[in-house]
Amino acid sequence: MALTAHGPDGARPPWSAAWELLLPAASAPARSRGRSLAAALREAVRSGRLTAGTRLPSSRELAADLGVSRGLVTEVYEQLTAEGYLRSGRGSGTWVGDAARAAAPAVRDRAPRGGHARVDFLPGVPDLSLFPRSAWAAAHRQVLAELPHPMLGYPDPRGLPRLRTVLAELLSRRRGVVAEPERVIVCSGVAQATTLLALVLRARGHTAVGVEDPGSPEHGALLAAAGITPTGIPVDDQGVDVGALRERRVRAVVTTPAHQFPTGIAYSARRRAELLDWARAVDGLVVEDDYDGDFRYDRAPVGALQGLDPERVAYTGSVSKSLAPGLRLGWLLVPDGLTEEVVERKRVMDLGNPALDQELLAHFVERGDYDRQLRRCQRAYRERRDTLVAALHERFPGVRVSGIAAGLHVIAGLPARWGPQATFLARAAAAGVAVRPLTDHRVPAPGAPDDTGRCGAPATGSAEDEVHLVLGYAHLSPARIAEGVRILADAVQELDHARVDSTSR
Amino acid sequence: MALTAHGPDGARPPWSAAWELLLPAASAPARSRGRSLAAALREAVRSGRLTAGTRLPSSRELAADLGVSRGLVTEVYEQLTAEGYLRSGRGSGTWVGDAARAAAPAVRDRAPRGGHARVDFLPGVPDLSLFPRSAWAAAHRQVLAELPHPMLGYPDPRGLPRLRTVLAELLSRRRGVVAEPERVIVCSGVAQATTLLALVLRARGHTAVGVEDPGSPEHGALLAAAGITPTGIPVDDQGVDVGALRERRVRAVVTTPAHQFPTGIAYSARRRAELLDWARAVDGLVVEDDYDGDFRYDRAPVGALQGLDPERVAYTGSVSKSLAPGLRLGWLLVPDGLTEEVVERKRVMDLGNPALDQELLAHFVERGDYDRQLRRCQRAYRERRDTLVAALHERFPGVRVSGIAAGLHVIAGLPARWGPQATFLARAAAAGVAVRPLTDHRVPAPGAPDDTGRCGAPATGSAEDEVHLVLGYAHLSPARIAEGVRILADAVQELDHARVDSTSR
Repeated sequence: MALTAHGPDGARPPWSAAWELLLPAASAPARSRGRSLAAALREAVRSGRLTAGTRLPSSRELAADLGVSRGLVTEVYEQLTAEGYLRSGRGSGTWVGDAARAAAPAVRDRAPRGGHARVDFLPGVPDLSLFPRSAWAAAHRQVLAELPHPMLGYPDPRGLPRLRTVLAELLSRRRGVVAEPERVIVCSGVAQATTLLALVLRARGHTAVGVEDPGSPEHGALLAAAGITPTGIPVDDQGVDVGALRERRVRAVVTTPAHQFPTGIAYSARRRAELLDWARAVDGLVVEDDYDGDFRYDRAPVGALQGLDPERVAYTGSVSKSLAPGLRLGWLLVPDGLTEEVVERKRVMDLGNPALDQELLAHFVERGDYDRQLRRCQRAYRERRDTLVAALHERFPGVRVSGIAAGLHVIAGLPARWGPQATFLARAAAAGVAVRPLTDHRVPAPGAPDDTGRCGAPATGSAEDEVHLVLGYAHLSPARIAEGVRILADAVQELDHARVDSTSR
Repeated sequence: MALTAHGPDGARPPWSAAWELLLPAASAPARSRGRSLAAALREAVRSGRLTAGTRLPSSRELAADLGVSRGLVTEVYEQLTAEGYLRSGRGSGTWVGDAARAAAPAVRDRAPRGGHARVDFLPGVPDLSLFPRSAWAAAHRQVLAELPHPMLGYPDPRGLPRLRTVLAELLSRRRGVVAEPERVIVCSGVAQATTLLALVLRARGHTAVGVEDPGSPEHGALLAAAGITPTGIPVDDQGVDVGALRERRVRAVVTTPAHQFPTGIAYSARRRAELLDWARAVDGLVVEDDYDGDFRYDRAPVGALQGLDPERVAYTGSVSKSLAPGLRLGWLLVPDGLTEEVVERKRVMDLGNPALDQELLAHFVERGDYDRQLRRCQRAYRERRDTLVAALHERFPGVRVSGIAAGLHVIAGLPARWGPQATFLARAAAAGVAVRPLTDHRVPAPGAPDDTGRCGAPATGSAEDEVHLVLGYAHLSPARIAEGVRILADAVQELDHARVDSTSR
């Protein structure tokens, strides 16, 4: 049987449709020829070009037609027979088997964050151009040169001892955290830490856990994914409302005491004490998300709540704001009684963080590079904050910028004449300025209809029809910040006129 | 009030016990002095050396006694008051607050794997000295030099496009996997992949999932942690028993078709087809753990089961055997209908793998370094396997080494005269040789008493009182392998004599 695209009698043999697929494979370099031929034949079977029951030419025939060795074809036939694509009858002959099926068309990728805004004020991302590439590369080089071989094996799921020691020192020095190395669990960031804690709390019978309202939508989403109902607890200008915690009968709450997200307040000393009293009374847990605790511009950052009672507070943070979110490195410190359970969850989740990355961060902190990086970011972000606040005051007279001078975002409260909010946001979007209203950070009551349209009551206590924006600035240069505020002001200025026009018509 | 260790009147003022703690802090370098003083004062409060209600000296007095500026002390007092460690009365005076509590003693670290065996034949770890340090370092340098800033941000939870494209090509070429980039999900390894799938299956109502018996204990443990009951399905010399799958009424099963762990067989073509028929009939899922699919020494590795029906098989593998487990990098390919759910779980778990590591691996594969590494490991591991098999035959006449020539371990069946197993294992341990019996890989029936003492029926079908060992060799040099087998033989040789002695007495 000759194996040209058309058989000698003019009819196309059943498998001639697969023929063209095999020719390039047959002319592949000798070392990969067998593999290429096998791949082409698999694809022909899967795609249905070679249908089940089709008899294949003998290895001698196919070898002659393709100009390859007979041994190669025999090997490929055996290989694909072993895999189930082909089957061989007793005695002689090779047929296409019926095990293979084609794949469904794969799903497409999602769009990236940010969209195509001209200026993006969405909060949460630091300036990635501040990442210390050369220091990081130098640390990698040195760590890789010195690392003992066994350190490349499966890591301790709680983190490498060297990094835990370094983090314990760093966190107790910078954040007033109680952090013996044995208490530190290395993880991939605050999201993983929250999920780990949520799973442990769920296993211990917590079905609802408090989250700040307004707050980070991530906290609620992560709790929900672990089977816990997030329960919004109002935040006032002192912190989360402890009375509401009692009323809702939860026994755990996720908080951001150093710089509440998004309102930007720091929990007061009194509220901290009340919160801990509550946790002790209900045998509960306070989760402290110290997401940007290193950045405070008017004074030293307020120490972590965890330092006051490490047996009632689980503390978590990461390098996402200080170095880069792409590193996926963070830490979690939990009360002693929870440690083993959390580590076991971490083990099940990923067996521990990458060892090389951990050694690298340890080296980086030990050399003082991390402190240098924090100082560098502090300087840059303070300047950007000042620029943003000044630009807001210039372009939006009467604006109220609230929250302590810290972190990577501010809250801007615009007087009522800039509203209504929906029109404001539409105009901002049309002008290519991405901004997020504070109302997006309200926590919907369980079962209640979505109240996105209603403006929440931010901690600063403002009128219903004001526009409250959460503006991230850390990732933008001062020039971009000024430009963004100008574009925004121009866009809503027009809105103001347009409204006046339509009203007077 | 003078603040020496003893007050002027000879009585120790209530806070003199904290005094010594403050002195070193006060002489810290100027830049960190405030932070040191705050840390020392926090520690004094937490530890109870300064008890609640104790009145602190005025900032002027303390500054004078410590030889620091008054402004510094004022700042520290304010800081610790804001944090809740101290409280200030109306008008004047600062007291120790009552919010702080000390930590419980932290739990100790666990012992590392392996213990202190002279020779460790436990399976699962590659030779970490084969890790290509210089090529890896070069790749890191280049990637870091070229990476656009936005790539350091939060990664796509399903993996960076560049790596997914590279893995799709690699896996379809080397393993016959159907792997469009859109189907590839980057994860931290097979453990995370299994957990992700288990969570998705659990959410879809699977309460029991099949695991191979004998099999990897990790599969069962990971399923159990996700709330699924692992159900042992017998493995014979063709693969997992499809009839048993039907009887147990599970609709998903975790398998190792290319090189079953631990028996070392490859699933036959017929069994592959039957398994897929079963999956189609019950609308089920086969999980394919391709943990060492790249290593086969007698012929090309058998292609992945997934290639036959990508809509019924979820495929997972990692660089743990080819590069290093410490990298925590792997992949997961799932049927199209499961992709979004798995990616969402991955997002909740860790927001995605570290971006830099992903780019690094992509670069490494693109340059051909990964293929080079695989060839290097192949050569080394084949030599070690040959050494082990030869040494076993020399030292344990009558031994049966089973399983195809592949992977990083063999099964050695020792004739009955080397038994009973418990004594054999005790002697091996006493001689400092770590070995694992095949019985350790039996899956306990749910609710059944632990049958560790009973010898399982391995796929090779052997007598009850034989000793079957799972011997990992990849991480040992040929010399160590030969030495280990010699020590083991000597140790149990003695056992043989001892038994004869005690019997004849």
